[in-house]
Amino acid sequence: QTIDDPQLVKLAEQLRGGSRRALGRAITLVESTRLDDRARAEELLQLLLPETGNSVRIGISGVPGVGKSTFIEAFGLHLIDQGHRVAVLAVDPSSRRTGGSILGDKTRMELLSRAPEAFIRPSPTGHSLGGVARRTREVMLLCEAAGYDHLLVETVGVGQSETAVAEMVDLFLLLLVPGGGDELQGLKKGIVELANLVVVNKADGELKEAAQRAVAEYKSALRMLRPLSDSWQVPVLSCSALEKTGFETVLQGITDHLEALGSEGLTAKRNAQARAWMWNEIDEELRAAFRNDSRVAALLEQAEAEVTQGRLPPGRAAQDLLQVFLDSSTRKDPQ
Amino acid sequence: QTIDDPQLVKLAEQLRGGSRRALGRAITLVESTRLDDRARAEELLQLLLPETGNSVRIGISGVPGVGKSTFIEAFGLHLIDQGHRVAVLAVDPSSRRTGGSILGDKTRMELLSRAPEAFIRPSPTGHSLGGVARRTREVMLLCEAAGYDHLLVETVGVGQSETAVAEMVDLFLLLLVPGGGDELQGLKKGIVELANLVVVNKADGELKEAAQRAVAEYKSALRMLRPLSDSWQVPVLSCSALEKTGFETVLQGITDHLEALGSEGLTAKRNAQARAWMWNEIDEELRAAFRNDSRVAALLEQAEAEVTQGRLPPGRAAQDLLQVFLDSSTRKDPQ
Repeated sequence: QTIDDPQLVKLAEQLRGGSRRALGRAITLVESTRLDDRARAEELLQLLLPETGNSVRIGISGVPGVGKSTFIEAFGLHLIDQGHRVAVLAVDPSSRRTGGSILGDKTRMELLSRAPEAFIRPSPTGHSLGGVARRTREVMLLCEAAGYDHLLVETVGVGQSETAVAEMVDLFLLLLVPGGGDELQGLKKGIVELANLVVVNKADGELKEAAQRAVAEYKSALRMLRPLSDSWQVPVLSCSALEKTGFETVLQGITDHLEALGSEGLTAKRNAQARAWMWNEIDEELRAAFRNDSRVAALLEQAEAEVTQGRLPPGRAAQDLLQVFLDSSTRKDPQ
Repeated sequence: QTIDDPQLVKLAEQLRGGSRRALGRAITLVESTRLDDRARAEELLQLLLPETGNSVRIGISGVPGVGKSTFIEAFGLHLIDQGHRVAVLAVDPSSRRTGGSILGDKTRMELLSRAPEAFIRPSPTGHSLGGVARRTREVMLLCEAAGYDHLLVETVGVGQSETAVAEMVDLFLLLLVPGGGDELQGLKKGIVELANLVVVNKADGELKEAAQRAVAEYKSALRMLRPLSDSWQVPVLSCSALEKTGFETVLQGITDHLEALGSEGLTAKRNAQARAWMWNEIDEELRAAFRNDSRVAALLEQAEAEVTQGRLPPGRAAQDLLQVFLDSSTRKDPQ
């Protein structure tokens, strides 16, 4: 399909040229929940697709208190010093309720947000986790088309958003503070299993020695927690976002991991992510279409009540509702 | 809807009367993948629904080597001695490939299988995990209608089948052997988090002392691995399936847990399970309907190829395919 909407073509052109304003407008379009906007957003993405994929996609997680913002700001500025352009995105479904618990406020990363080579975007709001993840994936593509070659995708360190982020990045960095092996125990186990790189922050001042001990402890804890068969031995590194030390080692760790993956491995990983993303999208939209179908909606409440009260077998209820949905000829739109 | 198919009405009657043959035929119907059988199976379940729900539903998991079969056989016979009727079911999606890796062979539990108060059924085959879980849930209802008041649902101790079983039982029992805290580390973390009761088997002969040490070690390991806020402190018990000792304690642990839940808590748990089951069923059937739609199928391969090769944005591909599916007026059946 050729896309010839002159507005979209122009927006794509400006975005490719690196216009922050065009990028902002494109993101607004992508994050919109309006049906006509969704269709145009997908057209815009298709126009820009050839310019995407040329970045290092890094997921960054850590519980509150590990100094995530300070790390991202200092590490981002370090990347810019090396000649890179950096986009910082966030995946935080809770921002829906709190109005932005992470990255809601650019003053958190004041220096980085003022750098012309950096672009900072808070988590999209008004979506479920699935919706936040989908929109963030699309914003990543927009940032790549706009010439950002390092994407830092931040998340909150609790719950399922980590998995969602791991499914959209090339590697996943877990940020910790100096502490005993108990620190790892306190984390959701799944998060440790997702990490490709562990970085102990705050290796400075009074905590410098503790950080070195923590590196050793985390290393042995990781050997317990991670399957031995892993072809990649997760390195545990340390840095100080405050004193801006250790960033070379972290960058080297990232490079090492990408080299261990290999370009074929990376391509395979990204292809699998794209395929899984398509199926996620289909599943979510199918559910939405089902729930928003007017004939289903008319029957759903009673069916759910009868099922939870044990008066209707769940399988029977599902079959009945599906039949109504699939026979419904009045359906027009999936939303 | 009144169900008046005389064959189904008769089958339901015989099953209520405790006929093993009727139960076997009903299970065959429920496990069938034929479309007309599915519809009749749901009708049968609806007929029997008033007679269901009167059992203690117990999930039992443990890695190979913990003596799961020996435990289930001896514990089942113990329940029968107490005047109960026991059905043993299995959830093992791998049986699809291996022809039954657990419970494929009744000679594994020879004594129990010969008891008239016991009913043993291997895992349904030819389904995905979702399908195995759904069919097992329905078989549980059939067994309840046939008068079995204790259902033991066995699973394999690796992977996702544990979660599926936890979502269909009142409580989940994890079987372990005497060993250090490392034993728990080796388990998939999620499984430990699902357990309501931990039982150390093989507390006999040379292992008797080791079992007592293991109980203490597992207790402290559980305190590390489980959230402290849990209102139920998971007890760690020991038994010997070989010497038939410790079963009273295990039964007491089960009773204690059900009492801690309370009858309202149990009802709420089962209602939530029924509701989730209905939605699982809807999701699975929606996916099946989508994938089996002839117009979707004609486009799917190319769309997937373009997405994985980075020529089509995943969201766009999903939208296009969904449009085709939802506009398709030739659809008749969800399968």
